[in-house]
Amino acid sequence: MAILVVGHKNPDTDTIASAIAVADLFSKRGQEAKAISQGEIAPETAFVLEKFGLAAPEIVTDATDQQIILVDHTDISQTIDNLDKAELIAVVDHHKLGDVTTSNPLEMWVWPVGCTGTVIKSMYDFYNIEIPANVAGILLCAILSDTVMFKSVTCTDQDKAAVEALAKIAGVDDVMALGMEMFKVKSAVDGASPEELVFRDYKDFDMSGNKVGIGQLEVVDLSMLDAHKEALQAEIEKVKADGRHSVFLLLTDIMKEGSEMLIASDDAAVVEKAFGIAPNGTSVYLEGVMSRKKQVAPNFIKAFEA
Amino acid sequence: MAILVVGHKNPDTDTIASAIAVADLFSKRGQEAKAISQGEIAPETAFVLEKFGLAAPEIVTDATDQQIILVDHTDISQTIDNLDKAELIAVVDHHKLGDVTTSNPLEMWVWPVGCTGTVIKSMYDFYNIEIPANVAGILLCAILSDTVMFKSVTCTDQDKAAVEALAKIAGVDDVMALGMEMFKVKSAVDGASPEELVFRDYKDFDMSGNKVGIGQLEVVDLSMLDAHKEALQAEIEKVKADGRHSVFLLLTDIMKEGSEMLIASDDAAVVEKAFGIAPNGTSVYLEGVMSRKKQVAPNFIKAFEA
Ligand SMILES: [Mn+2]
Ligand SMILES: [Mn+2]
Repeated sequence: MAILVVGHKNPDTDTIASAIAVADLFSKRGQEAKAISQGEIAPETAFVLEKFGLAAPEIVTDATDQQIILVDHTDISQTIDNLDKAELIAVVDHHKLGDVTTSNPLEMWVWPVGCTGTVIKSMYDFYNIEIPANVAGILLCAILSDTVMFKSVTCTDQDKAAVEALAKIAGVDDVMALGMEMFKVKSAVDGASPEELVFRDYKDFDMSGNKVGIGQLEVVDLSMLDAHKEALQAEIEKVKADGRHSVFLLLTDIMKEGSEMLIASDDAAVVEKAFGIAPNGTSVYLEGVMSRKKQVAPNFIKAFEA
Repeated sequence: MAILVVGHKNPDTDTIASAIAVADLFSKRGQEAKAISQGEIAPETAFVLEKFGLAAPEIVTDATDQQIILVDHTDISQTIDNLDKAELIAVVDHHKLGDVTTSNPLEMWVWPVGCTGTVIKSMYDFYNIEIPANVAGILLCAILSDTVMFKSVTCTDQDKAAVEALAKIAGVDDVMALGMEMFKVKSAVDGASPEELVFRDYKDFDMSGNKVGIGQLEVVDLSMLDAHKEALQAEIEKVKADGRHSVFLLLTDIMKEGSEMLIASDDAAVVEKAFGIAPNGTSVYLEGVMSRKKQVAPNFIKAFEA
């Protein structure tokens, strides 16, 4: 039975590309492995897989009695159901260390870089295994996506070096043009329902016992969202009402390098505690804030602890 | 301020050697780091450090406001005090994944091999940094110690390859002779108090809400312990009475490759649940069982879950 390689709920391009690449890498190391996904892939990811001729992974949501490799997360709230009834044999990630635990020794490759794809590039090198061109292509896109084309504060020199090396293998001449094409697909908001937009890139966190949801929409220009804000606010109020303390939606302008944050909360004072800026009603503009992982979530975690 | 590199409580040779080596490696990577220890080193470790001309790390037990790297563990019960008030920047380990979590991305090197020293050997290679001869010597001893000279079920081909490479760097001609010398120091029981013997290699676990302690004494011949068993049994009863559900002491015969386990428990039925053998009073012989980490702890964890 193949080992299942799976990323987080609400899969993004890194989660899908990393699952495919790690399945390839482990299979070539002699442990047959297969990429799966916990849910439908996003439009950006569909564009990337199509571009490099790869199929979307099968959707599987139950880990019972399987051997599992996790990519791009270590939080129980983001992982596949019944992981505690599976055997976790490896983790490849670039996030804070979450609350997943095991009862057996395992393999972990976790680095403080901008994207899981960057870690996987080094794993291929370490094991001296050649990266297939199409796998190099999707890993490259994953890094461009997670680092917002190198603009995110999470981006490191290792991410840039990985993109350079992967572009050669994938035969991509103009990395930035590919990135812009990808972000235009990601930014497309017309025709999408408010629910689709809120959950396009959404994560639940446990913060000192409070369930807190944070979504993020990255656009090339914030004004694209003007016609949608009212509906998005109504949608996050609805999501909050479903047993959460707060739901925040980051509307990130990747060109201006800042985020407007929409707020639905039982106690909006946590926003000022977290960022030192009082919200204007249910919204606040956070200059220079682009990363949920490195800027927004850690600040809220501390604010909830205080 | 230097990053502090620290292993588990009741430090063994792997924990001390790994802290020293990782501090060397990170310092050479440009992040000044210093090995510390949570407590007095064991006689085996003193022998190894003396042999290769290295000093025992300073004892530090509080992580408040420090930058920390953990080696050889990821369990809160085994880690330095106030880790939650420190910044955890890296983990190097070879155990099951414990309950330590972080609020920031970090670097993790965790492999399912017999010793943290084996992982560190590969990290030096990965970063293309030369291993000093004395550091190679103590890492080599750590691997011989953790794998019981390659006899433990936790031992992998990677551990054997690492020892071979490290022996060349350290200038050790007869690895097995060094191992026997080391294990004779480790086995020495005469002159030691029962308390010293129980805590020589001892770990507390949280098993489904129960505090469970497991100690291990490795000897070249079980009969060396005949005169001590009664006092050891009395000592583990005393340790159990201090708020624990159970305390087990493994008396491991590294030549016969099996362990007699002494039992102090509120419910000795967990032993039969875990190993399928009914104890003979407060003792049971476990044929082929040499590894607390891979054989004893996982079986008890499952037995306590049932
Ligand atoms: Mn990612
Ligand atoms: Mn160890």
